Amino acid sequence: MTDRLPESSLRLGLPSGSMQSSTIELFGRAGYRISLQERSVFPRIDDPELSAVLFRAQEISRYVVDQIIDCGLTGYDWVVENGNENDVIEICELTYSRATSLPARWVLAVPEESPIRSPKDFDGKIVATEIVNTTRKYFQKHGVNVNVEFSWGTTEIKARLLDGIVDLTETGSSIRANNLRIVDTILSSTIRFIANKKAWEVPWKRQKMENIAMLLKGAIEAKAKVGLKMNVPEDKLQEVIANLPSEKSPTISRLADSAWVAVEVILEERQERELIPALKRAGATGIITYPLNKVIP
Amino acid sequence: MTDRLPESSLRLGLPSGSMQSSTIELFGRAGYRISLQERSVFPRIDDPELSAVLFRAQEISRYVVDQIIDCGLTGYDWVVENGNENDVIEICELTYSRATSLPARWVLAVPEESPIRSPKDFDGKIVATEIVNTTRKYFQKHGVNVNVEFSWGTTEIKARLLDGIVDLTETGSSIRANNLRIVDTILSSTIRFIANKKAWEVPWKRQKMENIAMLLKGAIEAKAKVGLKMNVPEDKLQEVIANLPSEKSPTISRLADSAWVAVEVILEERQERELIPALKRAGATGIITYPLNKVIP
Amino acid sequence: MTDRLPESSLRLGLPSGSMQSSTIELFGRAGYRISLQERSVFPRIDDPELSAVLFRAQEISRYVVDQIIDCGLTGYDWVVENGNENDVIEICELTYSRATSLPARWVLAVPEESPIRSPKDFDGKIVATEIVNTTRKYFQKHGVNVNVEFSWGTTEIKARLLDGIVDLTETGSSIRANNLRIVDTILSSTIRFIANKKAWEVPWKRQKMENIAMLLKGAIEAKAKVGLKMNVPEDKLQEVIANLPSEKSPTISRLADSAWVAVEVILEERQERELIPALKRAGATGIITYPLNKVIP
Amino acid sequence: MTDRLPESSLRLGLPSGSMQSSTIELFGRAGYRISLQERSVFPRIDDPELSAVLFRAQEISRYVVDQIIDCGLTGYDWVVENGNENDVIEICELTYSRATSLPARWVLAVPEESPIRSPKDFDGKIVATEIVNTTRKYFQKHGVNVNVEFSWGTTEIKARLLDGIVDLTETGSSIRANNLRIVDTILSSTIRFIANKKAWEVPWKRQKMENIAMLLKGAIEAKAKVGLKMNVPEDKLQEVIANLPSEKSPTISRLADSAWVAVEVILEERQERELIPALKRAGATGIITYPLNKVIP
Amino acid sequence: MTDRLPESSLRLGLPSGSMQSSTIELFGRAGYRISLQERSVFPRIDDPELSAVLFRAQEISRYVVDQIIDCGLTGYDWVVENGNENDVIEICELTYSRATSLPARWVLAVPEESPIRSPKDFDGKIVATEIVNTTRKYFQKHGVNVNVEFSWGTTEIKARLLDGIVDLTETGSSIRANNLRIVDTILSSTIRFIANKKAWEVPWKRQKMENIAMLLKGAIEAKAKVGLKMNVPEDKLQEVIANLPSEKSPTISRLADSAWVAVEVILEERQERELIPALKRAGATGIITYPLNKVIP
Amino acid sequence: MTDRLPESSLRLGLPSGSMQSSTIELFGRAGYRISLQERSVFPRIDDPELSAVLFRAQEISRYVVDQIIDCGLTGYDWVVENGNENDVIEICELTYSRATSLPARWVLAVPEESPIRSPKDFDGKIVATEIVNTTRKYFQKHGVNVNVEFSWGTTEIKARLLDGIVDLTETGSSIRANNLRIVDTILSSTIRFIANKKAWEVPWKRQKMENIAMLLKGAIEAKAKVGLKMNVPEDKLQEVIANLPSEKSPTISRLADSAWVAVEVILEERQERELIPALKRAGATGIITYPLNKVIP
Repeated sequence: MTDRLPESSLRLGLPSGSMQSSTIELFGRAGYRISLQERSVFPRIDDPELSAVLFRAQEISRYVVDQIIDCGLTGYDWVVENGNENDVIEICELTYSRATSLPARWVLAVPEESPIRSPKDFDGKIVATEIVNTTRKYFQKHGVNVNVEFSWGTTEIKARLLDGIVDLTETGSSIRANNLRIVDTILSSTIRFIANKKAWEVPWKRQKMENIAMLLKGAIEAKAKVGLKMNVPEDKLQEVIANLPSEKSPTISRLADSAWVAVEVILEERQERELIPALKRAGATGIITYPLNKVIP
Repeated sequence: MTDRLPESSLRLGLPSGSMQSSTIELFGRAGYRISLQERSVFPRIDDPELSAVLFRAQEISRYVVDQIIDCGLTGYDWVVENGNENDVIEICELTYSRATSLPARWVLAVPEESPIRSPKDFDGKIVATEIVNTTRKYFQKHGVNVNVEFSWGTTEIKARLLDGIVDLTETGSSIRANNLRIVDTILSSTIRFIANKKAWEVPWKRQKMENIAMLLKGAIEAKAKVGLKMNVPEDKLQEVIANLPSEKSPTISRLADSAWVAVEVILEERQERELIPALKRAGATGIITYPLNKVIP
Repeated sequence: MTDRLPESSLRLGLPSGSMQSSTIELFGRAGYRISLQERSVFPRIDDPELSAVLFRAQEISRYVVDQIIDCGLTGYDWVVENGNENDVIEICELTYSRATSLPARWVLAVPEESPIRSPKDFDGKIVATEIVNTTRKYFQKHGVNVNVEFSWGTTEIKARLLDGIVDLTETGSSIRANNLRIVDTILSSTIRFIANKKAWEVPWKRQKMENIAMLLKGAIEAKAKVGLKMNVPEDKLQEVIANLPSEKSPTISRLADSAWVAVEVILEERQERELIPALKRAGATGIITYPLNKVIP
Repeated sequence: MTDRLPESSLRLGLPSGSMQSSTIELFGRAGYRISLQERSVFPRIDDPELSAVLFRAQEISRYVVDQIIDCGLTGYDWVVENGNENDVIEICELTYSRATSLPARWVLAVPEESPIRSPKDFDGKIVATEIVNTTRKYFQKHGVNVNVEFSWGTTEIKARLLDGIVDLTETGSSIRANNLRIVDTILSSTIRFIANKKAWEVPWKRQKMENIAMLLKGAIEAKAKVGLKMNVPEDKLQEVIANLPSEKSPTISRLADSAWVAVEVILEERQERELIPALKRAGATGIITYPLNKVIP
Repeated sequence: MTDRLPESSLRLGLPSGSMQSSTIELFGRAGYRISLQERSVFPRIDDPELSAVLFRAQEISRYVVDQIIDCGLTGYDWVVENGNENDVIEICELTYSRATSLPARWVLAVPEESPIRSPKDFDGKIVATEIVNTTRKYFQKHGVNVNVEFSWGTTEIKARLLDGIVDLTETGSSIRANNLRIVDTILSSTIRFIANKKAWEVPWKRQKMENIAMLLKGAIEAKAKVGLKMNVPEDKLQEVIANLPSEKSPTISRLADSAWVAVEVILEERQERELIPALKRAGATGIITYPLNKVIP
Repeated sequence: MTDRLPESSLRLGLPSGSMQSSTIELFGRAGYRISLQERSVFPRIDDPELSAVLFRAQEISRYVVDQIIDCGLTGYDWVVENGNENDVIEICELTYSRATSLPARWVLAVPEESPIRSPKDFDGKIVATEIVNTTRKYFQKHGVNVNVEFSWGTTEIKARLLDGIVDLTETGSSIRANNLRIVDTILSSTIRFIANKKAWEVPWKRQKMENIAMLLKGAIEAKAKVGLKMNVPEDKLQEVIANLPSEKSPTISRLADSAWVAVEVILEERQERELIPALKRAGATGIITYPLNKVIP
């Protein structure tokens, strides 16, 4: 049936919500076609050994621990908030996200004009946040007594109505745009691929999870890279190669016309924009770049 | 003028509706840019020998027969429903679709709790469907007398108000989700590229249609494949090659450093996820995969 | 701060509105990731030497002249309408656009049934347009006295309420669809990358702008091209090569099996659809095409 | 259960699609709250004796005949197209619609430049329409042999690709806007409340349907009317009353201040805009108008 | 400033989310215009003594207790879940909602095929819900040990992956549509207007809250009622009045024409549809009904 | 034809854009049904003597002066910006708007941290605005030399890139939310109904425009008012009446039961919420309020 997670499959939890489409797209580039089914939380996946279910990122680590699923992708922040750090296997860290590749940060923030300057100043105050447990531990560690209230959504306004908030930001710009000031960073978080401890002990499941991890990392790696090919006159080869990043070993193939060689190399996309003008000046012609699906070193 | 199909061109009918964007995208990968024009059923196409018009898939085979268009893409189901199987040339079958690559099936279905078990049990009953003619023929073939009513759209509820429906499904899951039960499959259908018989006799039109068919098939083929390159030490080459599917003849180029060779191969995207971990274990490094536009064997 | 254009950076103006997403996509293929920030006109760009701001295409050349920005992309039409042709440096012309690669034309149009046939017939009439200055100069050049009124948006109806309009069209089809008739073309326009004259004199800024221009042109070039690879038996090589456009010098690499060679070439995407069937007939097998990110000749 | 039409209730078919929201709104003003339920064709209705189901207007008369429902609202055109005129009871005609109160017309139309001038000229031609049966009968009546093809949706373009269309219009303006010319009107249609013949014979069902008809008509009537109150000095009463439409008998109540009377009358909303200025000139003050829910004469 | 709740005003918390627009509409009919301000949680309200803020219904009772706001509208369920029943004043109960006027019910549900029949059967099981505290208390009261997990959103699927859910339903139909079975009702809930205990002691605040409560109830009352007027011949007055619900005392005004009287009465909208046909049969004419804004008994 | 403004009608210009739907709704309450026609700027209007066209508010006064239309509704700001104050007749001022009834203000604003404090400080600076002419006149009046640049849309950011802006605000809150500071108000504006001077001299056109003005004002007036009815014991009548605003003369009708009177009065909606509790305390019962369409004093 389509609305169950078969026990015989590797049961994979995918994050719904803001991470959903980037996760599905990443699996697509890794070689797994995941297609959503209308009105169902069970996406179809084109591998008979895998079954998938969409859960909120907040809940995934709990269901991994409860063995509802064997493994899943979720933010490190929610693993911590649920207190599951020691109860799951972290297979690998994955640095994809919608907008930037910065880790998301949970920051303690107050109105710009607030007199509060340090965690100590929160004694006896009210703070709103979505990560209540993590925030309470943070204040306990600092030895301050704070009333931490659970609150969803756009909590900036709460920093004004209450005394402060702990909210998520990638670059800090939304914090500044709301005329808030960051007092401290409580937790930095990236996405993790995690496994249930018992599932990790099952050999075929473990190998499957390791393969998936290799392919996901290969797909993330490929996103930031391009293939570059160019034709170089034999006598300019050294000069051209000197421009390439030293860690790269280019593929050089001899052409029919022996005065020329074809040089091919995989580059960081960011290097490309400095490199191409330099390569052209060094004598390369017919430079092309092409997209990659996967890069496995 | 832009709102006519010039007689001197090859007049192509494209399906509007749910197949429209996947069809335009397929032509794009095949090398034909088709751009919709606001409020017009005549898309622009970047080949002066071609003119295109959007019709509902249901109507295309009829207009091919009437010579309003020379050729078109439509579902086999509608060719059959219109009774045009013998009146058109089927140039090729195309297996693209939005969600899956399964053929669409028209199934006869009843409420789960219905006593009906076989076509015979429909004698004297009412059945709703969008493919009235095909359904009538089906029941005639079984020698049962059924009142077949035409009905659009989400007809599941009709299976409850009437006695049964004939409706479209890819995987059967929407049928089950509505607590219906499949009694029989009436017709399986994929997309076909069909031609008017007279147009097929015109040599330049026929060659053009054959070329389009080759490119469309090449583009569909490419969608399910990737290019893979890797560097292999000369002494591990046999072991690496042994991992590749036997029908593949890899391109092996010697590199400047004679201890290494570059191996390149075209693979099914699905094989890739098993293969990459295996190749890495066999000694390959610098494995990359890249997307393809077209594969013509 | 995120809401300023730092003086120390190269300040780049990008067109908001209908050209916005195609411009950002073009920069993406050129190697610059531009990400919009909610509620901000300052997109993030992954090059610390660059800062960007979104302005309407209509305003960009004015802000280049005022040195609010160092350079920008905008239509030639708005450079002319603002009277800035001689006040900016045109770095390069760029022929990307959403629908077609035709230059946009501003045409003088009247209702089909109007007696007006030439610019002279507009003497004493009222004409509505968004490019008031350009239209006034046009009529002055023809020595006719016309009341040119500023008007936004869908001005076709104004051609009926007033005496005529000057409006934008790519192919003329929207004009005909409104039962209007083109009397004359006032101005043809493509997109230009323009610079402030003082910024152009700063060496690092100039080199940066030249590099950006090279990469943008390379990305536009790549959009219309594909890479093609095929395997050819040694004895058919001449015949296959004879089919390739003469200006192309293919890369030919010898394979392990010495009876075959691998041929690789970069083609116009439009040639491909004629070429592939011909190459196959000439003996090529295993033909694949793949997408390109950038082509720098 | 909510997904059945209980046999013991009066089963009412409501038109889905373009008439749906105006029908539900009309029932609301008539005193029946109908609330849609997500993903269900069975709206909830706040009268335990009534059950409702949404069907396409095209199908309602067929299901009334088949006794799937007892009564329903649909267009007269679809009653005719289904050949059900004599098989159902027409309880009343209802003149509500989304845009105008004109009856919808099905017109036979051709391109403006077509030589066709009368039905006779269609001999041997192809005509596309959604009302195939009605159109065939029309041409049979005129003794012409026409190939009538079924076609959905925006069929204007078909008038150009084929020889003509039969399409729906309220004012004819969409026809003219597409440069078509009306040759003849095939059928005029308003909405009808129809009943199954057997259901009509059941006394409580009949009385219920008659009550519904009265309330629906009262609600339609009220939409075009307003209540008007004003204060009039006793000595101007005759003059004020002379301005009122003669068929109206105003309610005149004596006030505490015996020099004044309060006059109240129900008016067509259209009369109001002429009347109010006239009443004010005749001496009325404190004129107010108020909306009505229902008017039963 | 607009982004504060002034201490000197009565600070009112309004529920955001699914109840937001019906609440604003209710206040509108009660005489308070509340207008949302883009990107702000502080709606503008046209009474200088009132200030408003939008919070999630889940949080409102907590902020009433914390004195962030003086009063607010929220569901009784969230007052209970937050454990605030005894910490706030309940000013009045309000029975408006989007779809029905039924109280919302939180029900304990399991898959239809589950062997679980009573709360006792949950011993050792996992249950997902949004109201964790209330659910835990419920099971404690029954003396069963259940692992209650917090879960957002469409939790029906969780009833299958875990052992059961506690979810919200108005009519139970969404539960049945998901093939779940209700084991018990945990909590019934309507909307409440609640106050902080200290604010309730401030005389002007208390009077203001009581006035608001009166107007809100008057507006809710009016929604279900209509005004009805009719003209009745003097000699039929008793018969007509006999048809009216006995608790209604109609306003009878004598008209100029002494043979007729005008009768006016306020009715439940639901009575109207039975009454109007009866009144007409009893001799009333010129029956009109009109909408009401407010009814204060 | 539907796409012309007949010379024989009163040609009315309605503002498209943000004022469009509130204007059409206002005309609706005034007694004129205006229905938009898809893809047409000519709305249908149910008065054969009237024809209407939608123009941008910015352009309407110019077309009134040019006699393209006889009259129109537009903002006073655009009449001034176009320099048409003395060229049109102002029939009446209308105070409807989407959000508030405050006049819109065009304010000169600078970043909060800017040293600019008065108009004089703008000497030699650049200011961006949509009302270039009005802004230039303003600075000329103050004798300062400012470069006023035309700019559309969200110009707040321009206050930071340039030196200041002149932008529209109703309450000033959007200005503050962008951390800008208001230096001066340049122009206050409400909506005006204006006429062409020649059309005003045509008697039937003038009377028609005056009637429309009366009905529009009556409809605006009604929006802010409600009708209130209550039953009052004869002996409490004076006390109840004493609570009513003194300028109101209530309609008092004697009832059948002579111990009671019915009191009816038209009130400002804002008064109602103070009055109803007071009236109830004074002895009134059966208080109802009802909505009004039009109030003509």
